[in-house]
Amino acid sequence: MKAMNVGLLGIGTVGGGTYAVLERNQSEIARRAGCPIRISVVADKDLDRAARVTGGKVRVVDDAFAVVSDPEVDIVVELIGGTTIARELMLAAIAQGKHVVTANKALLAHHGNEIFAAAYRAGVMVAFEGAVAGGVPIIKALREGLTANRIEWIAGIINGTSNYILSEMRSKRVSFATALGDAQRLGYAEADPTFDIEGIDASHKLTIMAAIAFGIPMQVDKVYTEGIARLSPEDIRYAEELGYRIKLLGITRRTPVGLELRVHPTLVPSTRLIANVEGVMNAILVQADAVGRTLYYGAGAGAEPTASAVVADLVDVTRMHSASRKHQVPYLAFQPDQLSDIPILPMEEVQTSYYLRIRAYDRPGVLADVTRILADRQISIEAMVQREPSEGEDQVDVIMRTNRTIEKNMVAALDGIEALASIVGKVIRIRLEEL
Amino acid sequence: MKAMNVGLLGIGTVGGGTYAVLERNQSEIARRAGCPIRISVVADKDLDRAARVTGGKVRVVDDAFAVVSDPEVDIVVELIGGTTIARELMLAAIAQGKHVVTANKALLAHHGNEIFAAAYRAGVMVAFEGAVAGGVPIIKALREGLTANRIEWIAGIINGTSNYILSEMRSKRVSFATALGDAQRLGYAEADPTFDIEGIDASHKLTIMAAIAFGIPMQVDKVYTEGIARLSPEDIRYAEELGYRIKLLGITRRTPVGLELRVHPTLVPSTRLIANVEGVMNAILVQADAVGRTLYYGAGAGAEPTASAVVADLVDVTRMHSASRKHQVPYLAFQPDQLSDIPILPMEEVQTSYYLRIRAYDRPGVLADVTRILADRQISIEAMVQREPSEGEDQVDVIMRTNRTIEKNMVAALDGIEALASIVGKVIRIRLEEL
Repeated sequence: MKAMNVGLLGIGTVGGGTYAVLERNQSEIARRAGCPIRISVVADKDLDRAARVTGGKVRVVDDAFAVVSDPEVDIVVELIGGTTIARELMLAAIAQGKHVVTANKALLAHHGNEIFAAAYRAGVMVAFEGAVAGGVPIIKALREGLTANRIEWIAGIINGTSNYILSEMRSKRVSFATALGDAQRLGYAEADPTFDIEGIDASHKLTIMAAIAFGIPMQVDKVYTEGIARLSPEDIRYAEELGYRIKLLGITRRTPVGLELRVHPTLVPSTRLIANVEGVMNAILVQADAVGRTLYYGAGAGAEPTASAVVADLVDVTRMHSASRKHQVPYLAFQPDQLSDIPILPMEEVQTSYYLRIRAYDRPGVLADVTRILADRQISIEAMVQREPSEGEDQVDVIMRTNRTIEKNMVAALDGIEALASIVGKVIRIRLEEL
Repeated sequence: MKAMNVGLLGIGTVGGGTYAVLERNQSEIARRAGCPIRISVVADKDLDRAARVTGGKVRVVDDAFAVVSDPEVDIVVELIGGTTIARELMLAAIAQGKHVVTANKALLAHHGNEIFAAAYRAGVMVAFEGAVAGGVPIIKALREGLTANRIEWIAGIINGTSNYILSEMRSKRVSFATALGDAQRLGYAEADPTFDIEGIDASHKLTIMAAIAFGIPMQVDKVYTEGIARLSPEDIRYAEELGYRIKLLGITRRTPVGLELRVHPTLVPSTRLIANVEGVMNAILVQADAVGRTLYYGAGAGAEPTASAVVADLVDVTRMHSASRKHQVPYLAFQPDQLSDIPILPMEEVQTSYYLRIRAYDRPGVLADVTRILADRQISIEAMVQREPSEGEDQVDVIMRTNRTIEKNMVAALDGIEALASIVGKVIRIRLEEL
């Protein structure tokens, strides 16, 4: 049995995990794949680190392009990250006729269309299970497990850092800043946490899932993205009183007028399984016409969980290495000539429910003014909580849950409400999905 | 693009669902599969039903063996059920060089080894996603998604009928008989519910999952199986007071001395996601060395959810129809010549924790006697609830949660406890897993 030779680009966290898993489970993996899968060369700028992780057992080079053109390498695994060098390396590997495996969601969200087109021309596979939800085989579920279905929507907790912060804010009743600090101390958030807390990382993953679910090209620039940095513990507590939890969700939904693509904090009923996904864990809920609702849960990041996905891809690619293109699973689930051009809805056209927190002077008639403005836009109030003002205060918080409405209606209504003399500051508005 | 011709055996619930899904989503499915997939002939004893479901658009025959040998048929889908005729049909189809798709868990659990051996000789695929957890792509996750991992254990809610009954008993505080009656009225339980409530159906599914997870042959006769018919609402309530819910779980676990294969009611901490899976839904929790814990949730039965799995198999088989055997995913995840002969542990050797309910006369010294007998066998008590006797009663319920111990130790201890003069009747003992 000839071994499959892998060229590993980048031996940082995930690369190191991939090396460790392939070594530890080599016999189990070979028994499944039908032949050994071995890393024959590693490229990393840090040669010392590479030598340390591999224990000197594998050839280590600092030129990733040399690996890509190495005739001994059957499959290239790109775990460098970023969208510049990684893109060049992927395209170079593909041009050399190599199959590629990557966990790089930013790269695929931004340059996936170009990469898949090049791979199609070259007749090579591009596997990317590790790009979404780490070790949870959600790409496989969407690309292969649910092929019978017309997928209706996906709602996912696809950023562990944000979910950890929101879990901490709720369970320990701490501020966003405190929870972020804890996450950074524990290594769950980076020194610059922007990508995670502003929903950018989630928007990359959502882009990839939507492409597979609906058979559309990657369109990361059309994702509406709102992060969690402005959430307050009060809103988390009020949400809980209404029977909801706040999660950063990536949501994509097929509607008669177009596709929704949005990442934002979302109130979800506390009784839903996905509302009970805590800490750094990920979970993706998929609604499809035949199967109904399925949910996929697991570790969305980390060395070995992500390596689990990378190595599963390696097994798939190994098995299909010498098969012809028609036998391969299409990159985006649909055959490349069968992608759709479904329009993406701008956020103003998206329909959802809302949680509102309105700070008002404690005067008669305020509520009547607010509800009239909402009613003028066909927005009705499904539930309401009004706080008694604290001693000596003349302002109260009014919390509302509305019916479903179009975002632009809500924006216009809130403009009207905020213009009332009896209202203090901006209205807090968080979207809500019953799921 | 030549269409793939499917011969459908049996057009009952799942067969009808399969027909409906293939028809409704034919364009979406063809865009994924690369060619149309159409049912070209249906075999069913009830020709009227078959004609009604297919609207007269498909050829209908009453001889399933004619379909199996029909040269126009590329793939045979077996949805007849049972283990006699279905077995003959599967083997006949395989002998004719046809790929087969089935959702028949009893057939695979009992005759899978024979069927896979015959299919291997014939070079055909056997796909069976619908055999476990309906539309949840758990077979794909285990066979392909987690190939990097050494799987440690699986614990699954894999029988919707039982889970519905247990959910009803807990939420409505009704007896087993009442909940079963409700389930029967709603069509969730059959007139003879034995297969579901005695854990037999779950044992079939567990057998299949264990074979794939550990690369072992099907060994359904070695599954320890205990159903839910003897559970009382009291135990469900006491479990809840201790922070647990009772679920019928199928559990398989790798231990240094062998594999566990067991189906029984199990206390699970209420905070676990799997404890919150309610009604007829299924969920499978998998612990594996690289990815850690993943969970897969969805509808475990029903026409279209199961059809979702059957049609996903059809797409896979269509794509690989003309590929060679080495490109195919092995039937049981491991290459057929790479299966293991790991011993299955008898239940007496299985290690687990226990919930005990002991009915005792309200006398001094009873608890000392009980705890001494347990301690003699190194069984310690982790939590205990003792009820005050009701007015005029002289008996009390003592509820205990123990540490992990070997089943035979517990059996021996319970023999000793039940022999005490102060103990009334048999001790209720339900296994407990922290998961």
